Formats: sequence, C-alpha cells, structure tokens
Amino acid sequence: MCGIVGYIGTEQAAPVLLDGLEKLEYRGYDSAGIAVYDGNQIEIKKSKGRLKVLEELTHDGSTMPGVVGIGHTRWATHGEPNEVNAHPQFNKDRTIAVVHNGIIENYQKIKDKLTAKGYTFISETDTETVAQLLDYYYEGNPLEAITKVMNRVEGSYALGILFADHPDRVYAVRKDSPLVAGFADDGSYIASDVTALLKHTRDVYYIDNQEVACLKRDGITFFNIDGEPVEKQSKHIDWDSNAAEKGGYAHFMLKEMYEQPKTVKNTLSPRIRKGHVVIDDLHMSDDDIKAIGRIHIVACGSAYHTGVTARYVYEQMARIPTDVDVASEFRYRDPIINKNDLVVIVSQSGETADTLAALRLAKEKGIRTLAIVNVVGSTIAREADEVMYTWAGPEIAVATTKAYSAQLICHYLIAIKFAKARGEIDDAKEKAYIDDLEKLPDQIELLLHDKERIQKFANRYIAAKNIFFIGRGIDYATSLEGSLKLKEISYIHSEAYPAGELKHGTISLIEDGTLVAAVATQDDLYPKTVSNIVEVKTRGAFVLAVTNEGNTSIEENADYVIYIPQTNHFFANSLAIIPLQLFAYYVAVGKGCDVDKPRNLAKSVTVE
Amino acid sequence: MCGIVGYIGTEQAAPVLLDGLEKLEYRGYDSAGIAVYDGNQIEIKKSKGRLKVLEELTHDGSTMPGVVGIGHTRWATHGEPNEVNAHPQFNKDRTIAVVHNGIIENYQKIKDKLTAKGYTFISETDTETVAQLLDYYYEGNPLEAITKVMNRVEGSYALGILFADHPDRVYAVRKDSPLVAGFADDGSYIASDVTALLKHTRDVYYIDNQEVACLKRDGITFFNIDGEPVEKQSKHIDWDSNAAEKGGYAHFMLKEMYEQPKTVKNTLSPRIRKGHVVIDDLHMSDDDIKAIGRIHIVACGSAYHTGVTARYVYEQMARIPTDVDVASEFRYRDPIINKNDLVVIVSQSGETADTLAALRLAKEKGIRTLAIVNVVGSTIAREADEVMYTWAGPEIAVATTKAYSAQLICHYLIAIKFAKARGEIDDAKEKAYIDDLEKLPDQIELLLHDKERIQKFANRYIAAKNIFFIGRGIDYATSLEGSLKLKEISYIHSEAYPAGELKHGTISLIEDGTLVAAVATQDDLYPKTVSNIVEVKTRGAFVLAVTNEGNTSIEENADYVIYIPQTNHFFANSLAIIPLQLFAYYVAVGKGCDVDKPRNLAKSVTVE
Repeated sequence: MCGIVGYIGTEQAAPVLLDGLEKLEYRGYDSAGIAVYDGNQIEIKKSKGRLKVLEELTHDGSTMPGVVGIGHTRWATHGEPNEVNAHPQFNKDRTIAVVHNGIIENYQKIKDKLTAKGYTFISETDTETVAQLLDYYYEGNPLEAITKVMNRVEGSYALGILFADHPDRVYAVRKDSPLVAGFADDGSYIASDVTALLKHTRDVYYIDNQEVACLKRDGITFFNIDGEPVEKQSKHIDWDSNAAEKGGYAHFMLKEMYEQPKTVKNTLSPRIRKGHVVIDDLHMSDDDIKAIGRIHIVACGSAYHTGVTARYVYEQMARIPTDVDVASEFRYRDPIINKNDLVVIVSQSGETADTLAALRLAKEKGIRTLAIVNVVGSTIAREADEVMYTWAGPEIAVATTKAYSAQLICHYLIAIKFAKARGEIDDAKEKAYIDDLEKLPDQIELLLHDKERIQKFANRYIAAKNIFFIGRGIDYATSLEGSLKLKEISYIHSEAYPAGELKHGTISLIEDGTLVAAVATQDDLYPKTVSNIVEVKTRGAFVLAVTNEGNTSIEENADYVIYIPQTNHFFANSLAIIPLQLFAYYVAVGKGCDVDKPRNLAKSVTVE
Repeated sequence: MCGIVGYIGTEQAAPVLLDGLEKLEYRGYDSAGIAVYDGNQIEIKKSKGRLKVLEELTHDGSTMPGVVGIGHTRWATHGEPNEVNAHPQFNKDRTIAVVHNGIIENYQKIKDKLTAKGYTFISETDTETVAQLLDYYYEGNPLEAITKVMNRVEGSYALGILFADHPDRVYAVRKDSPLVAGFADDGSYIASDVTALLKHTRDVYYIDNQEVACLKRDGITFFNIDGEPVEKQSKHIDWDSNAAEKGGYAHFMLKEMYEQPKTVKNTLSPRIRKGHVVIDDLHMSDDDIKAIGRIHIVACGSAYHTGVTARYVYEQMARIPTDVDVASEFRYRDPIINKNDLVVIVSQSGETADTLAALRLAKEKGIRTLAIVNVVGSTIAREADEVMYTWAGPEIAVATTKAYSAQLICHYLIAIKFAKARGEIDDAKEKAYIDDLEKLPDQIELLLHDKERIQKFANRYIAAKNIFFIGRGIDYATSLEGSLKLKEISYIHSEAYPAGELKHGTISLIEDGTLVAAVATQDDLYPKTVSNIVEVKTRGAFVLAVTNEGNTSIEENADYVIYIPQTNHFFANSLAIIPLQLFAYYVAVGKGCDVDKPRNLAKSVTVE
C-alpha cells in the first residue's frame, strides 16, 4: 500500500527521498509527493501517476534544496488519486507536513469538529485531518501535539511529520501500519519497510505500535504515547541486497518464478535431518502437538490459497480437523475457538493488516499461534508465539510466486511433523514423503523449462474475456491460485470453481471457445474431473488440462495438456501451479500489462 | 438434467409423451426424442434444440401412431448435443430402445468389449452402450437381461426401456438417478419427477435404487436386482396443480419471486406456536441438541449459499461450531466427523446427486442427518434421519428464488430452536427473533414493490461484461447468491468477494464504470464495508449499495442505494436478496435471455 520515507542528515534530502520511494514502488501506488525544508519554509511537490513524473517535475530532486524531508507514494483509499489528494498534506499555515499510511476511521468526526472551529480543508483525504489536528494541538512542543493526536484518532496509521519551526528533526509514529527507522553515517532514515533502508544501513529499529521516533542528524530517540523516552535495540538485517535487483530478467515476477527451485530448497533443506523433519523454529513438544484439537488457518490472497491446500494435508495426513478462513472474515465472525486449538497465520510481508488483527484476536483468546512468514522481523513474526520462516528472500513483484511456493513447503513440513508426533505415520512413510519433497526443486526446474510452449499457448488468450479454472480437492486449491495469478496481472476475469460445482450455475457462462483450465492431479478424483471436462467440452469450451505424467487418456477430451512429474498427491500443488504461473505471466506480457506493478494493487496490504 | 417419460395404455402414446416432456423442460436439456411401437416395429424421432422442433417434426405426435412408448429430454454429458446423440438409443437390430439419465462410468470398457464382439456404435453416448449390452444379454426374457446389465454397469442411471418383441410393457429401472411411476385409469406412466405425472394421477410409486418396474396397461409390478417380485405402496401427492402454471407472469422466475412472501409464511407459520419455535418434523430431544458437537452443512449452488449464511447464525446465535461444504468437495475430502456431530443437508429437489452422496456418506459413518428439502418424498427426504420441509411448492424456474428463501427460514428456525435448547437465548430473546421473522413476509412484499425502479437501473447494465458483489459476514453470503443469480440467467461474468479480500488481487479488474454491488446490512461491519466501497469508488467503480433503512450516510459514497427494512441482523439476507434477485431478473430480461431455462443449466443436477 502507501509507502513512507523520511530523511535528515548531511546529504541533500530530495534525491535520497526519491531513491527511497523507488524502492517502495512495488508496494503499489497511484500518486507520489515529497516535502523538504528549504531553510526558510517547507516546500511540497506532488504528482499523480508514476514516480517518474515527480522526478521530472523536480529534476531528480535538484530543484528542492534542503537536508531534511519526507516522501510518500499513495495508494488511494479516501479521495481519488490526484495531486491534491497526494501526500504530503499540510496544516492551514503550511508549517506542518504529514505523510500517512493507513486509514483514520473517525476522520469525518474530527473534520466536522475542526471545520466548526474555522479550519478549511482542501483535499478529500483523512490525512489532511491529521495535519490540521496537529496544528490544533500544537503549542510549540511537537511531541506533545503528536501524542495528543495519537489519543484522539482511531484506526491505523504510520506517519512521517515535519515541523517548520523544528527543522532539525523528523517525527515518525505508527499504529497497525508498518514503519522502520535506521541510523547511518550520513544521518537518520525512516521507511515503510527495510528494502528502502538497505542501501544506507543494515541496522534498523522496528518502531512499536503507538511509539514515536524523533530522528535527528546524529541519532534517533524513541518515546511512548505518554511522551516518556523508550530504550530500543536495533536489529541487523543480512539479506543479500542483490536479491532486490532484476538480474537480467524482464520482470521481477519472472525472476522470482525462476528462483522457486532454490526457494523451495532453502525452505526445505534446513528442516530435513537424517531422514526426519526437524523444525527448529517450532517450540512445540510432541505432547503439545498431540493435544491440538483443531487447526484454524487464517490468511489473505495467495497465502489463503496455501491454506486451502494445507487444510487437505493437515486433515488427511495428520487427521487434525482444520478450518481455513479469509482473515477479514475470520476476525469479525466471532469464531468459536478452543484453548487447545492452533491458529496458523500465513503472510509473506508479515504486515497484512487483517491477518495481523486475526493473530491478535487469537492471542487475546489465549490460543497458541504459529506464523508462516517471509519478512524477518515483521510485525506478525514478532508477535506470533511460533514463527516458521519461508526462506524466499525479498519478493518484489506484486503477484507472489516464490513466497507462495515456500509457504506450501512450510505447510507440508508442519503436516509431516504433526502426523508423526500423533502416530498417524511411521518412519517409512515420513521417509517416503521427504523423498518426494526433496525431488520438488528439480521437478519445478523441469516445468520452468517448458516456458516457450506455454508462452505460445498463452498468446492465443490475450484477448480472452473470461477464463475458468476447475479442479477437485487440492486441485481446486491450485485452481484458486492459478485464477488469481491471471486476474491480478492480466485483468482478465477468471474464476476458479470446484469442478463438481460448476454446473450449479456458472456453466451457463461457457460459450464456444471459452478457455477452461482443468487441474487433475489427484488420482482418486481423476475420473470425476474428466467427467466435468467432458461437460464443459460439450458446451464448446477449449480445455487446457494439467495432469500427472502417464494420464495420457486425458488427451481424448482435453485440447491441450501439460504433464507434471510424479509426486505424492499431497504435494501436487507445488508442481501444478508452475505452468499456471507461467501462463498468467505470458498472457499479461502478451497484453502489454505492467506485470510487476499491476493497476490498483499493492504488494503488502496494510489497510483493512 | 435429463428428463424421462414412458407410457403404455389406451391413449396414443406420442402426444402423451410430448406433453410429459414439456413438464420436464425446466430440468434443462439441449435435445429431445421419443420412441413408439407402431404395431410392427419401434420408431424413433429425435431433434436437437427445443421440444418445439420435435413437436413440429411429429405433427404433435400424430405421425407416430401407437399406444406404448418412451421419451427423453437430454442434457449432454457424453457427446455434443445433436440428433445422433439424443435419446432414445437403439441396439444394433433396432429392437430395443433405451432412454437414460445419469452417467455410466465404465461405458468405455463395455464399449471396447462389445466392439471386440462385433458390435458397432453410431453415437458418442454412454447410453448406446446400455442398449447394446441389453442386446448382448437378451435371450427372450427382458427382466433377465435388465438385471444382468444392472450387475455389469457402474455409475448412475434411470432407464426407460422398450422391447419390440414385448410391446405390452415398458421397463423402468434406476440407481442414484430419480424415476417415479404412476398408474391411472388409462394406463401406466413413468417420469423423472412427479410434475409430469400430476395431470394423470396423484398416486405415485417411488422406484427404489436398483429396483425394476414393469409397466403394463393394467398395472405395475416391481422387482429387485435378483428379479424377485417386490411389494410397493403408492404415495398420494397433494400439490396444487395450478402451482405449476405461470398465472399471468411473464416468467416462472418472476412468479416465484412474487410467491416469496407466501412461501416464507408457509414455511414459518406452522412452526411458531404460542411464541415458541416448534419443529414437529424434528425428532431431536433437548438432550440430543445439547450433545451436538459440530454442524456440517452440505449442499450445492444456492442451497450452499443458504449454508454459508446459516453458518454465521448457528455459530453466533446457538454457539455451535459449524462448517459448510460444497457437496462435491465434501464427499471426496475424507471429512473428519465425530459421532455427536450433525450433518445438515440442503436441496430443493431432494435429488441432487452430490448432495445425496454426501448424505449417504454421513449415514455410513453413523452420523445423524437432517435434510432441508422442498420436494416431498424425494430421495434425500426419504433417506435422511430428519427432514424439515420447505413449503415452497413446485419451483419451475431453473434459477431458484422461493426455495432459497424458504431454506433460509428453516435454518433460522433450527438455529433458534438449538440456541434455546442449549440455553444460549431465553424466552424474551426467542420472542424477539420470532417477532422479526413474522415481519419478513410483509417486508419482502414491500421490497418486491420496488421492481420498476430496479428494472430501470438494471437496464443500464445489460451490456456489462463484469460485475462484482461484495459484503462481509452474512452480507458476503448474500453477495454469493446475488452474483450466482445474475450469472445463471444473464451470462454476465459476475463474482462475489468478501469485501475485505477484494484488494488481495481482484480489485485489479475494477475499471471506470465497473458495477460493484455492495451489501452492507450488518451494523458492526458497516464502517468496514464503507471503507471498501470507497476503495473501489476511488478506482472508478459505480457502486450499488444495499443497506438498512436509516444508513443514509452511505449516499456520500455509493452511487445508487437500495434500503431494506429493519430486521435482526441474522435475518438480513432474506431481505437483501430480494432486490438482487430482481436486478438479475431484469438484466436477463433486458438482454433477451431465456430466463426460465438458461443455457447449459439443469434444474435438478442428478449427475456428479
């Protein structure tokens, strides 16, 4: 979602801010702006659209002299994406500038109150309300005004704030939206995530909820909501900074798809020892595991789809009853959870707002939480009882591929571990599963080699209006992800359906030539799915089938077949998804879409 | 799905068969045919498309003299809909004619075997295999050949069979596909459901699984799979036969929407006595109810959507943990169910193949089953431990409206009953719920009056390519049904999303002018849904909101608002769905679609 940067130091601020915003582009945005104190007053430049426009407007920042400033990329929530609604937002006297990520839920009430007191508002944003409210409370002490605002506003926020009469500092504060700070030789930085800081420093401070940071050229100090100083430790980040570059690939998404064999290996290998699954990050004894009454998986988007897959694996391999919920629904449906249940949270960024709220809800109820997270040190990773990291490295493309694949591996490992502890499988079975898992990286590699054939096929469908994905059981879970991938980056309306459910309504949309992608990797469901293929075929559909090597009989009914290598049926999603990722990618490329930064989308969804 | 009729008696068979097939048209079909014995041989006439074509071809049956015959409307599964693949299908010598509903799963194997023995096949159907296999086994005794075939074929079937050398009878047999028989003054009848028999007799025989019926002019006899005679009782049907006529409405769907106030009343009233919910059909003691560990709701299509709603009600009102599954998924996912759980099955027809299979699976595991069913005496109604009927009368339109509304009422009543028995609500609360339920018929009436305004609005969207429905909690369940209604009859690709999940991908499809229908009736979720409305608005969507009377603040963000009267939040779906049904109906009418018989769809899905 929105991206925030801030800087105070010995360098010119504007170029530093623009560079930082570039690193945050992947989060998704539709306008951008920066504010710099020029020695006399705060100057603001904003523009709609790509960051490039802002860079041209400011001659790469050179027209905005000054050593202290804040910057922002905005993903519109309140008010359409235009220059007026872009951040930074000013108070009435243009002496306080604010950038904001999140949603102020009671902004209308505050706006009404301030309007009654003579304030006028020029934008439609909730953020301007914060700037004006700061103005209202400000009597010379920035920290005091900030904490008063914190007590007054409801909702979520990460804020970067500049005061014209305190040009020696930048203030930062957050609640339920991410914000990190870092101190380097040349000055102090804030940013929405670590990626934008890595170039300057690898020692970062995670600002806690309702904490205020005051950045000066020579250091950073922290305060709680009562304005009292707080001691903080920095955290060292050891990501490879090359990981955030495209390395010769046309798009980050393609690069990340090609990193999947390595990602799967990285996530898997450290957890296999002497033929057994050993999860060091998991601090649950066999007795703890035996005591689990039910698993509740909670996540959003693609992470949710790994949950749909995992439900089958946890239930059928470990015989633990499992629910899976979309986080925004889970948190508001007053779920019935028992003390001996386990809540499994899945999030690439570790900052997804609804998922984080679901985690907190579970913790409030005293339920043990296990998070599968990619970003080390993210809020969800810090707050969950147990964290199992996906070792996927930074994922830049908005449409997830390698993090998704890594999340699947974590679920498989947990399922094997649980099944073993509960006596549902023996050593031999565990060994057989591990053997299959260890083959996955090479098998994924093999499927990636098929890209030209898939590209050729994909090119036929760049003008498609509707595409359907069908499957049963785990194949349905794969279909959900295949459909979402396509939708996200190609803007084609695709939809996934349980193969047996299609004829209860949606089959009416099938016309001559409609593409139906059928996933049929589960042996016991194969004849049933083939019956459904015949049904859509009969109504004119063109059928792309993804099935196991050897199922050549499918060619009697499907028009185009992609075979995946043999693996245990529990793990088939890890293979079947690869051609579907490639298909989505090449359709989008063929249509000329902005693959890495699709319209309207944000990498990390930090508002509800 | 496919429809079967058969007749032997004193009247001319062909006109009787055509009339019966008309009554079955609502089941959905794409070709039709009849076979009549003309005193010398069996004659067959078939045609692709509407029944009208067949009627013209046979001069309303007058060109096919004879007093014994079978007829069929086909909803294609194996082989495209054309004249060759239409039923009846012949054996090689054209002495045995067969009509079939269902799927023979091992037809390929049988076909290969017969081919090796010199048989040739002219159609792509599985049905022709049955005709040829009968030929292969037939040595003069039809019953013997039929029972041999029953032992040989796998899958589901209802069959009507004519033997040229036994023209005094029609044979009927079924397994997992519906078939009923009836005896009248003028002869004997078979049909796929009761609707086609009502004109002739109200006393019908439900043929049991793997039972054979032999129809003669003067009576019907029944046999088991071993060829031994079976005694059967007929069942009296007391439906109003007018109920199956349009009564002045342009379409059955419109008529059935307008019957909803009465339907809701009929389903509700008999179960309210002296301010309490009394469900006579339910034979569960308070102790039985207290002992329920978990409810598993299993259904397909719209009935599944009532389950999604009911999950919230059972969980939040009665505090019973509840799952809801699509039947085709439930039956194959090896679900973990405990002895003290309750499986709730929902089906209008009571014949839905996957739902029926799920019911049987639950029974096999020894789990108590409760079915909410509309068609009295249907297979599901007969096999479930407990049946609660929806008193909706015959529903003819393929897209359900009144049966859906009646199913919701059953769920509410069960939830109140369970909540009361488990001490979750007291008399006063029960009374308050009942008061709200009793207001629903008048409130639905009121919403139906708004039809012209909705028609005007719907006319704007007849050219729409994509429409989205969003909501949270119960509003999400309503969205699912609103979206399916539109999809089924207007062929516009619409999709329902949990409002908070939209931005995890699907929001990329929102363009300038895309219609988003937002349901926002749940007070505690209202501000969250409004935030999501603002998000799509910001990306250019045109927003239709359905919300409660009094929520006028929504007009600041939504473009078009429909208000529903006040009711308890648990029951809001019953009101909010009405304008969405009307919207779907008028979009389809505006597009000139065949509203009552949408392409590719069948009323009662009796194959997997």
